[in-house]
Amino acid sequence: MLKKVRLNKHHLALLLLFVVCSKSFGNDGYKLWLQYRFVENEALRGNYRSYINKLMPLGDSKTIEVAEKELELGLKGMLGLDFLSKPGVGEKSLIFGEKSNLSKDISIQLESDFNNINDEGFIIKSISIKGKNQIVITGNTDVGVLYGVYHFLQLLQSHKPIEQLKIVDSPKLKVRVLNHWDNLDRTVERGYAGFSIWDWHRLPDYIDQRYVDYARANASIGINGTVLNNVNANALILTPQYLEKVEVLANIFRPYGIKVYLTARFSAPIEIGGLPTADPLDLDVIKWWQEKAKEIYTRIPDFGGFLVKANSEGQPGPQNYGRNHVDGANMMANAVAPFKGIVMWRAFVYSEHDTTDRAKQAYSEFVPYDGQFKDNVLVQVKNGAIDFQPREPFHPMFGAMPKTPLMMEFQITQEYLGFSTHSIFLPKLFEEVLKADTYRKGKGSTIAKDIDGSLHNKRLTGIAGVSNIGSDINWTGNTMLQANWYGYGRLAWNPYLSANEIADEWLVLTFSTNESFIKPVKNMMLDSKEAVVNYMTPLGLHHIMDTGHHYGPGPWVSNLSRPEWNPVYYHKADKNGIGFDRTPTGSNATEQYADEVAAKFNNINTCPEEDLLWFHHVPWDYRLKNGKTLWDGMALKYQEGVNQVEHMGKTWDTMEAYIDSGRFNEVKMLLNIQFKEAKWWRDACLLYFQQFSGKPLPDGVEKPTQTLEYFKSLKFPFAPGN
Amino acid sequence: MLKKVRLNKHHLALLLLFVVCSKSFGNDGYKLWLQYRFVENEALRGNYRSYINKLMPLGDSKTIEVAEKELELGLKGMLGLDFLSKPGVGEKSLIFGEKSNLSKDISIQLESDFNNINDEGFIIKSISIKGKNQIVITGNTDVGVLYGVYHFLQLLQSHKPIEQLKIVDSPKLKVRVLNHWDNLDRTVERGYAGFSIWDWHRLPDYIDQRYVDYARANASIGINGTVLNNVNANALILTPQYLEKVEVLANIFRPYGIKVYLTARFSAPIEIGGLPTADPLDLDVIKWWQEKAKEIYTRIPDFGGFLVKANSEGQPGPQNYGRNHVDGANMMANAVAPFKGIVMWRAFVYSEHDTTDRAKQAYSEFVPYDGQFKDNVLVQVKNGAIDFQPREPFHPMFGAMPKTPLMMEFQITQEYLGFSTHSIFLPKLFEEVLKADTYRKGKGSTIAKDIDGSLHNKRLTGIAGVSNIGSDINWTGNTMLQANWYGYGRLAWNPYLSANEIADEWLVLTFSTNESFIKPVKNMMLDSKEAVVNYMTPLGLHHIMDTGHHYGPGPWVSNLSRPEWNPVYYHKADKNGIGFDRTPTGSNATEQYADEVAAKFNNINTCPEEDLLWFHHVPWDYRLKNGKTLWDGMALKYQEGVNQVEHMGKTWDTMEAYIDSGRFNEVKMLLNIQFKEAKWWRDACLLYFQQFSGKPLPDGVEKPTQTLEYFKSLKFPFAPGN
Repeated sequence: MLKKVRLNKHHLALLLLFVVCSKSFGNDGYKLWLQYRFVENEALRGNYRSYINKLMPLGDSKTIEVAEKELELGLKGMLGLDFLSKPGVGEKSLIFGEKSNLSKDISIQLESDFNNINDEGFIIKSISIKGKNQIVITGNTDVGVLYGVYHFLQLLQSHKPIEQLKIVDSPKLKVRVLNHWDNLDRTVERGYAGFSIWDWHRLPDYIDQRYVDYARANASIGINGTVLNNVNANALILTPQYLEKVEVLANIFRPYGIKVYLTARFSAPIEIGGLPTADPLDLDVIKWWQEKAKEIYTRIPDFGGFLVKANSEGQPGPQNYGRNHVDGANMMANAVAPFKGIVMWRAFVYSEHDTTDRAKQAYSEFVPYDGQFKDNVLVQVKNGAIDFQPREPFHPMFGAMPKTPLMMEFQITQEYLGFSTHSIFLPKLFEEVLKADTYRKGKGSTIAKDIDGSLHNKRLTGIAGVSNIGSDINWTGNTMLQANWYGYGRLAWNPYLSANEIADEWLVLTFSTNESFIKPVKNMMLDSKEAVVNYMTPLGLHHIMDTGHHYGPGPWVSNLSRPEWNPVYYHKADKNGIGFDRTPTGSNATEQYADEVAAKFNNINTCPEEDLLWFHHVPWDYRLKNGKTLWDGMALKYQEGVNQVEHMGKTWDTMEAYIDSGRFNEVKMLLNIQFKEAKWWRDACLLYFQQFSGKPLPDGVEKPTQTLEYFKSLKFPFAPGN
Repeated sequence: MLKKVRLNKHHLALLLLFVVCSKSFGNDGYKLWLQYRFVENEALRGNYRSYINKLMPLGDSKTIEVAEKELELGLKGMLGLDFLSKPGVGEKSLIFGEKSNLSKDISIQLESDFNNINDEGFIIKSISIKGKNQIVITGNTDVGVLYGVYHFLQLLQSHKPIEQLKIVDSPKLKVRVLNHWDNLDRTVERGYAGFSIWDWHRLPDYIDQRYVDYARANASIGINGTVLNNVNANALILTPQYLEKVEVLANIFRPYGIKVYLTARFSAPIEIGGLPTADPLDLDVIKWWQEKAKEIYTRIPDFGGFLVKANSEGQPGPQNYGRNHVDGANMMANAVAPFKGIVMWRAFVYSEHDTTDRAKQAYSEFVPYDGQFKDNVLVQVKNGAIDFQPREPFHPMFGAMPKTPLMMEFQITQEYLGFSTHSIFLPKLFEEVLKADTYRKGKGSTIAKDIDGSLHNKRLTGIAGVSNIGSDINWTGNTMLQANWYGYGRLAWNPYLSANEIADEWLVLTFSTNESFIKPVKNMMLDSKEAVVNYMTPLGLHHIMDTGHHYGPGPWVSNLSRPEWNPVYYHKADKNGIGFDRTPTGSNATEQYADEVAAKFNNINTCPEEDLLWFHHVPWDYRLKNGKTLWDGMALKYQEGVNQVEHMGKTWDTMEAYIDSGRFNEVKMLLNIQFKEAKWWRDACLLYFQQFSGKPLPDGVEKPTQTLEYFKSLKFPFAPGN
């Protein structure tokens, strides 16, 4: 059927009509940044068509098959359904395949390019074969080719020229994974986009189309691994009943270059193995893990390995048996090493028995072990020393373990950043962390350089993002937050990209190439990160959210059993001032940083004001750099956050003409909620802190609409993600 | 834009191309039976277009607005996007509006038709006005008009002629509700299609498009009410925090003729009212409910009323205070009566203190109260006396309470029928129940006549369906089960419709008008109900599923604390035979039926074999009507069920050419699971019962693939819906 219809101008008009209509009929967001919108500009479309009229796949792997399918889908969507329909001679072929499948006359032209890519890199190049112009997409592996194919499709969707292509790119990190905090009952810890996309009950026999589209989306941005289940793990995932299901997912993801990983509950040998202990030095335990690894690899030969949360927040671990993190991690690393698996061992630990400063504990526990971990262990470190706050100074472990591969753990889901209702562009946060300078090898020792291995010449490198994906039709519960999944993937590929570039890319792929839309919305996105800091935790405040669900403000909470669970532990507001003294006069957490960094943080005059109350207990009448008192400045920051959200809403309201009504209305409603909640944060926090400062709100700060008692009375027993 | 493009043959070819392509690109099922597929037959499309070129709405209510929107969506989808785009004179108008808005020259032609419809009925008629032919859709109310509009669109989608229209129809029941067993945390008790579509956290500010599409789907089949939350209720739904959210849903549903109802936890006056008691005769309790009703009606003037599960399975109720169901129901009925609200009081009660026969309890508790309930109380009775089994004899309460409005409670979600993986067409089950003859006023006293009020001249009538709707993109987790939502709605409108007609309608609207598809798939659907009875509970067996989650077989379960929770209580298999003696020699449950019915059930020779083991304990070597022994016959029935499912799968496999790949593959995978699970049921049940019969499997029954011990060892801690 497809091959018989010829396209003429009338058809194109009708095609255009369809495009226009689909705009008004809404877009449910399911397609993410893989919209493959029709290229309406006829000249451009003609130009693209003039460079390709045939696909020429090389090799017959499943990866090449999915690459071809994606090209067909994308090119037909962007260039017209009749595209590729005429059987033609190979004049204008799009050739794609891995190096070993290239003909000599092609590979000879790419020799120097191949020197510049690694195993997952790609080359997209316009070449001439026997006088004919061709485009070739290649790499050392088929997965590299697939990455190149996605990049090529993105060029077209971005309306970039394809006349003289010469693009050579490789990922800078090896392990680029999503962490799903998904439970076996399909609830998602800190999930705000519905429930888990893993329908364990129907697996292995029912293959949800979502699994394929999940793989496509991840491959399109270079994510190459997924940890399917929650770090607060259930050992049942390691039983044959579940491994049979995991195997099916691994089979679906494999052509897309995505490895499956699982979290391993440290006490699994007891719970599902029937052993009396999980002591990592016990021979039966060692054997049990070895056999479990073998069992898994028999099903899934390219299984990625284990992610482990041990001795943290009630999870079992080696310390239960008087052993340490090295004992635990290395025992499991030994089990997977014969199969080239890895262990990602989380550094997110804190103990109720250590009463000094929670921020110091991970460093104290882990840095002494530098050099002792097996070489297939990655220590997974959150970006800051507390827990995914809107802003944290970088984690002091970065740069401080030259002999241990550290992988970054970012949180894409917004546990502390307004859930999925707040439209916050997180690459801005990620960028700030990656650019932070540890000074461990002098100026320029950025975190990006630690995690990509270049700072200390580390071989194994990686990054993890705690997923914001759920069963909502649009995947992330808010179309704008698809940008955070996208942006995380892009930074995992290249941690030196700017948030600005990423926003540009994502907006074009997701919505429109129209600059009248891109510019204002990009600015809105880039400002959103500072807005949330301002209306939640300005000037270095942190961990002042409500308990359990972490929804909304709760600076007053002081009754939880462990001191470091209480917001009052973190802000320490009193008549004299506010903030946590982490300088040598206080907890001395700053000693965990390089001298240059510690000196900067210790001195209240050089400490960045954005981190002020993180490191200092500051009097209410302390003068900020703008001349305002701390109290006035803090109040104005809260107001500024509210104003920024209001501005975001107003910006969005003017965008109606540029995009479909479905996504427009969705984001509009969510920005209204964000505005309401920003005011809630401002009012609740200022009313609470005012009890200590005893000062009036300065000019420019709106009067609270409710009393402190009202805000304290709010209860959300069914807030999601808890 | 729309108005400028002229359609020609070339355009149509392209349009066709789109239609064809959309077939191969998959259909995610979100649109249910409102597909509005393009009418590909050019002659027919032209014929339809010749009868309408303009919409003429009368009146300006929100209901007429949504009717117009639906007509635009539907007609453009079916007849082409350019349709309705040319501003024309009113030559061929589709006139729609309620009676009071009709012009005299129209209404005069419809006078006799108006005599034949009730408040929710509709008239669709071809009339002539001043010599011009027009189509008018009208009713006594705007909601009637909306029902007519949906019916009209369905005519077109079914490719029915519209030359000489004269359709007059009204619903036969007044209250046609869905019951959502949805919890406030979005889990759904006995939900197998994801999680609750009610996103309580984001309400009232975020309006999910699903809410609107839910209303459209329901209105299109005449459902006029929805109980939003679980009968195992949480009192928080009655607090202002939640009522604010409920109000928004009510506002969305109102134009579609759908009233909102809530379940009321009987102990709410204690839990959220701060009272020391919930005694229905306590004056403070009475006042509390009156004020609560007033508070709700202030927000939602057309609030439907309360659904109450009291003194059943641990739910609080009037018996906690020494009162009875009448005391409880009437107290709440009094509270909502001033606002025209109703109370739906569930008859699903059974007590661990009554040791005789669970099947007898509801009748024993309720029938003595006949005539004592307020006239705004409906007693809601499940179709059978146990609990939504694949087949149950009809509930003896039907027909037995001439002075009490009884509403039917069907379960659309498949708690006991294979969850959403088994493709069972439930209208076949519903039809069997509705046609069952109670003989309470002699032969022909069918249940349909009791619930539509005609048997005993009851004024208030109703029906409830426990919803199978969830957050899955296709709503019901299995496209085939959309038919059960659809079919329930159709039978709620007209309980005399046949399953055969309903299957026809649904298939055409959902998939295709092609008879080569419709015929075999309809047969597959119509056979599916008997198949599930055969492979789960043939010959009157019941309640032999596994515990808690009710997933898979568990006839061996005997260790639960309450005797009537155990499968062994129901099948009573022993060396002598199997079955529950409910005749006068046993529990004498049959005495609760009319004499004619009791006599038929009591006599093993007249008792239908499909109910044999429901009413009789039968020796293993008892001869069935086909000459086989009971054991052989039972084994062959199990095998027959398996064979039927195998046949369903084979039928479906031949349907690939007729529908989109997305839904085709989905149903194919699910039928494979059903086939596996049918064999599981057969093998587990026969192996278990064989211990008692001591007999070999007869010829024709496949050998079990696993041991009984294996089947008993299976555990499903995370089965959905539990």
